[in-house]
Amino acid sequence: MPKFFGTPDGVKVGQFFVDRRELHELSVHRPPQSGISGTGREGSDSICLSGGYVDDEDHGDYILYTGQGGNDRNSGKQISDQNLQSPGNAGLITSGVKGLPVRVVRGANHKSPYSPPVGYQYAGLFTVTSYWVEKGMDGFDVVRFRLDRIAEQAALVASANPDPDPAFATATVIRRIRDTALSRRVKAIYEDACQVCGTTVSGIGGRTYSEGAHVMPLGRPHLGPDTLDNILCLCPNHHVQLDIGGMVILENFDVAVSATSQAFGSLTFKKQHTLAPEFASFHRALWLAL
Amino acid sequence: MPKFFGTPDGVKVGQFFVDRRELHELSVHRPPQSGISGTGREGSDSICLSGGYVDDEDHGDYILYTGQGGNDRNSGKQISDQNLQSPGNAGLITSGVKGLPVRVVRGANHKSPYSPPVGYQYAGLFTVTSYWVEKGMDGFDVVRFRLDRIAEQAALVASANPDPDPAFATATVIRRIRDTALSRRVKAIYEDACQVCGTTVSGIGGRTYSEGAHVMPLGRPHLGPDTLDNILCLCPNHHVQLDIGGMVILENFDVAVSATSQAFGSLTFKKQHTLAPEFASFHRALWLAL
Repeated sequence: MPKFFGTPDGVKVGQFFVDRRELHELSVHRPPQSGISGTGREGSDSICLSGGYVDDEDHGDYILYTGQGGNDRNSGKQISDQNLQSPGNAGLITSGVKGLPVRVVRGANHKSPYSPPVGYQYAGLFTVTSYWVEKGMDGFDVVRFRLDRIAEQAALVASANPDPDPAFATATVIRRIRDTALSRRVKAIYEDACQVCGTTVSGIGGRTYSEGAHVMPLGRPHLGPDTLDNILCLCPNHHVQLDIGGMVILENFDVAVSATSQAFGSLTFKKQHTLAPEFASFHRALWLAL
Repeated sequence: MPKFFGTPDGVKVGQFFVDRRELHELSVHRPPQSGISGTGREGSDSICLSGGYVDDEDHGDYILYTGQGGNDRNSGKQISDQNLQSPGNAGLITSGVKGLPVRVVRGANHKSPYSPPVGYQYAGLFTVTSYWVEKGMDGFDVVRFRLDRIAEQAALVASANPDPDPAFATATVIRRIRDTALSRRVKAIYEDACQVCGTTVSGIGGRTYSEGAHVMPLGRPHLGPDTLDNILCLCPNHHVQLDIGGMVILENFDVAVSATSQAFGSLTFKKQHTLAPEFASFHRALWLAL
């Protein structure tokens, strides 16, 4: 049967489950063993955190999650590279690109202050806000995901927001554009014209719109710097493409779909602005094994 | 001197002020009388809520704010239409398009549970997440703004988030793309090709990306329905343009920069999908007097 995305009827955020059989029967997490449910074609509808991967980090509202494959079942250590072919990894990437909500379940074996003492707990819906490749603690390539909890749903703890917007209760956020004083300066230098295609998106009364794109991503875990030489002025279309792995910046500042494919364009620069090559190189590495 | 955007050094979120003179001297809200500081060219850097407008609604984390002009200073009632020419209105729209943070100050005369008992209180930075025209309670056109509090700053009340991301502490969110099960269905019908320009944004491994755009906006105050006939499949560029008032949908489903300008394109439809004309008409009315 096709994957169901979202919280199943009758299941509550915070609900406890005795075992994986019960998770399966109530359609919270259906695979009997795998940590990730889903495929590249359909997307991934749920993950179950159960302590299998040394690189996982659980921050409660967001999780840095390791993809599947290449680890030793007994020790949890990586013994070979991970890749995109694993259906779970491909599924989570599709969920990220398509904005599909992912059910997250924590098991007692998952090392985190948010884990239940026994059995499993349904933590609610998360979105895959980014994904990339890195060297794991054990020296092999791992596919990594950042999942952020969808804010507008029943809280596990009391919420500071007294008045959530009801229309958003079943909606996920698929993009958050972060804007800083420096990204505003870059946008002003280019007068909102995209450095890839020259497009300027127009708004009311002749106003123009563009986005400041951090090439080495801001925020955990990358913690790219908020500096002029890490920011490009892009139209929303090329900003999305940069963020979801559909565009990399080559050494000569041409742009291409991947590091090994032919350039489809070239970044335009004004003399007050440049991009530091190390940030373009960091960004290329994020997509290398994908 | 040019406008300063952000919280001035030495000023704290939640800080109290005796009077407007003190707000002026500490650069929290500089105009001696006006509720909005700023101009269309520079953007608006601060607003002061002080009970002047009957249509204001304060929900704490977000505020539905009435633009300036057309009201009787004594009664607070509207006595004529508002328009874009007022520098404050033009300034807040520019802040919305450019993602500029706006300081919000509440005065004791502002009718809201969040107002201070006497004097003024600095409520922190907000972003202008939307703006439009509507008939106010007194029957005249008013320019309205929705301002949302920027989440990643010192909280007025204790926060449920134990671990905010430090890189976002000085960043504002300028776009949040909401995704629902129905917007995913519309995107699937069009296979991620924009109904305006046919563009498909590409991601990693041949994946494609598009956005479901609610024509009558979701969420407060419009509360547009989450139904197939209120959603278009658009590329990010045309979605932004629809949201910031740079594109309206005419009666014949052509698209144009404004209701009175010449069409620059036409919506493409597949037979499983249509747009209800009343939502296109509601959306046109949002921008009519701007």
